[in-house]
Amino acid sequence: MINVQFAALPERWETYEAPLRAAFEKFGLAVDLRLDHAPEDVDYIVYAPNSDLQDFTAYTRCKAVLNLWAGVEAITGNTTLTQPLCRMVDPGLTQGMVEWVTGHTLRYHLDIDHWINHQGGEWSPVCPPLASQRNVTVLGLGELGTACATTLASLGFNVTGWARRAKQIEGITCLHDAEGLEDALSTAEILILLLPDTPATTNLLDANTLDLLPKGARIINPGRGPLIDDEALLDALDTGQIAHATLDVFRIEPLPKDHPYWAHPKVTVTPHIAAETRAITASEVIAENIRRGEAGEPLLHLVDREAGY
Amino acid sequence: MINVQFAALPERWETYEAPLRAAFEKFGLAVDLRLDHAPEDVDYIVYAPNSDLQDFTAYTRCKAVLNLWAGVEAITGNTTLTQPLCRMVDPGLTQGMVEWVTGHTLRYHLDIDHWINHQGGEWSPVCPPLASQRNVTVLGLGELGTACATTLASLGFNVTGWARRAKQIEGITCLHDAEGLEDALSTAEILILLLPDTPATTNLLDANTLDLLPKGARIINPGRGPLIDDEALLDALDTGQIAHATLDVFRIEPLPKDHPYWAHPKVTVTPHIAAETRAITASEVIAENIRRGEAGEPLLHLVDREAGY
Repeated sequence: MINVQFAALPERWETYEAPLRAAFEKFGLAVDLRLDHAPEDVDYIVYAPNSDLQDFTAYTRCKAVLNLWAGVEAITGNTTLTQPLCRMVDPGLTQGMVEWVTGHTLRYHLDIDHWINHQGGEWSPVCPPLASQRNVTVLGLGELGTACATTLASLGFNVTGWARRAKQIEGITCLHDAEGLEDALSTAEILILLLPDTPATTNLLDANTLDLLPKGARIINPGRGPLIDDEALLDALDTGQIAHATLDVFRIEPLPKDHPYWAHPKVTVTPHIAAETRAITASEVIAENIRRGEAGEPLLHLVDREAGY
Repeated sequence: MINVQFAALPERWETYEAPLRAAFEKFGLAVDLRLDHAPEDVDYIVYAPNSDLQDFTAYTRCKAVLNLWAGVEAITGNTTLTQPLCRMVDPGLTQGMVEWVTGHTLRYHLDIDHWINHQGGEWSPVCPPLASQRNVTVLGLGELGTACATTLASLGFNVTGWARRAKQIEGITCLHDAEGLEDALSTAEILILLLPDTPATTNLLDANTLDLLPKGARIINPGRGPLIDDEALLDALDTGQIAHATLDVFRIEPLPKDHPYWAHPKVTVTPHIAAETRAITASEVIAENIRRGEAGEPLLHLVDREAGY
């Protein structure tokens, strides 16, 4: 019997209990799934960083901590967490992110906001350019960034991607390092942020880098709040350097009611809905990693503690 | 020497002269392209239905009329036009249509209008369903409808297509005839109209067929204005049977300033911009058809006069 501890907010248990049990059965795993195993009996922890469990010291035989979230920045600094840690890479979450990013990219590309508000009776036809004439840059080429970049390229957009390390993705101009970042920003009519939150990416978009974008660029941030220096973005919106921003993630969530982003005419706020882990597909990822752990195979989506993701 | 007459509004000559000459040269055609050939000398007419040329009687040796527009309903009733007539099927126009339709479909799918207007500071996260849980129906499976349907299916949408004749398209549930239309409408959370304008399609969407849609359906019409009974649509918007409509084409264009669509809170009007023929790609289609005509090969996109498209 494999002892699996579920450690997340209580309402998550309601969402996940049945899908997890179904996935364990589907993968042929004899699992005792509980909220209340004695720490020293636990083989695996299904984990959300906002759970009460923050001290992993007593979990002496735990073979892996399996995160329910894609982001791990809230736990990589936890020195009691010495077990292997896996991020969630949920195909349902990835698909949702691709749809959200593609929708907002086409919204900017086609200037849909203009037409929604264009109700005065003036017939003024201007065709948008084709996607092949539109430069889109995706910062971050992990699971989510790569999926978004390839979908946008399949729709015809001229896509540049940037990541810390060199990558090769068919149909995408892939850049890396500091010089590559300058090039990636300098052409970005629409900029999409899908980087992890690490010390190296904090305020990546600040007054200097915002200035590298073409005048009137649009920004879509479904990645992490701290990627953007908020004051610098507000300034760039005021000068017109940035035409509009759609922001799904923030340094503080919920975004405080009095934050200038809310009522700003050039900002669309969405409440962290770009992508959500879907219980059925995520439970199968958890089950697959337990199967791998038991079979001595390498775990999927293992976090590199040095890099922080 | 092949004599080609250009018959469209004068401003079109400025747009098309250079691309047409370039395309003829690329295809190795010795063409005398002019605005003022004597009718009896003309081999081919490059044509727009709003040109002054409406009587084709004198064009006795003309081998084909090559339309610059996708729609031919304005000329199929012209009894002096006895020459073979070809519609424009421009890859640039198709690509633009796919982008416009995909953008507005994702806009409805993700409820983007709601978030654009959601500026009051209320943090209320609700994730949209995945595209695989969203039923989209495309009426019309010609060049444009098929291209839109397959792109939406590639993004994960559950796509049903309907056409007059039976079709088979991979990844699309294809229906036809009157019974098929009822089924196609009954599931359509988002309905896209890409039918030609023919006597059989006039007012296809009327009080009866609007009633077959699921309550709260959204309609996107980049096809032809007369497909919709405007009074019936306005009624269905008022009762909530239809939640919203995005209309790019109208019975009268420009849409009159006092038309109720303009200021209607549940209607987005765009001024016939969903798709535009692009001069460079369209000129190559014209050149290819002249090459075919001279070589005795079948012409592309020949209009079936009985069907009207």
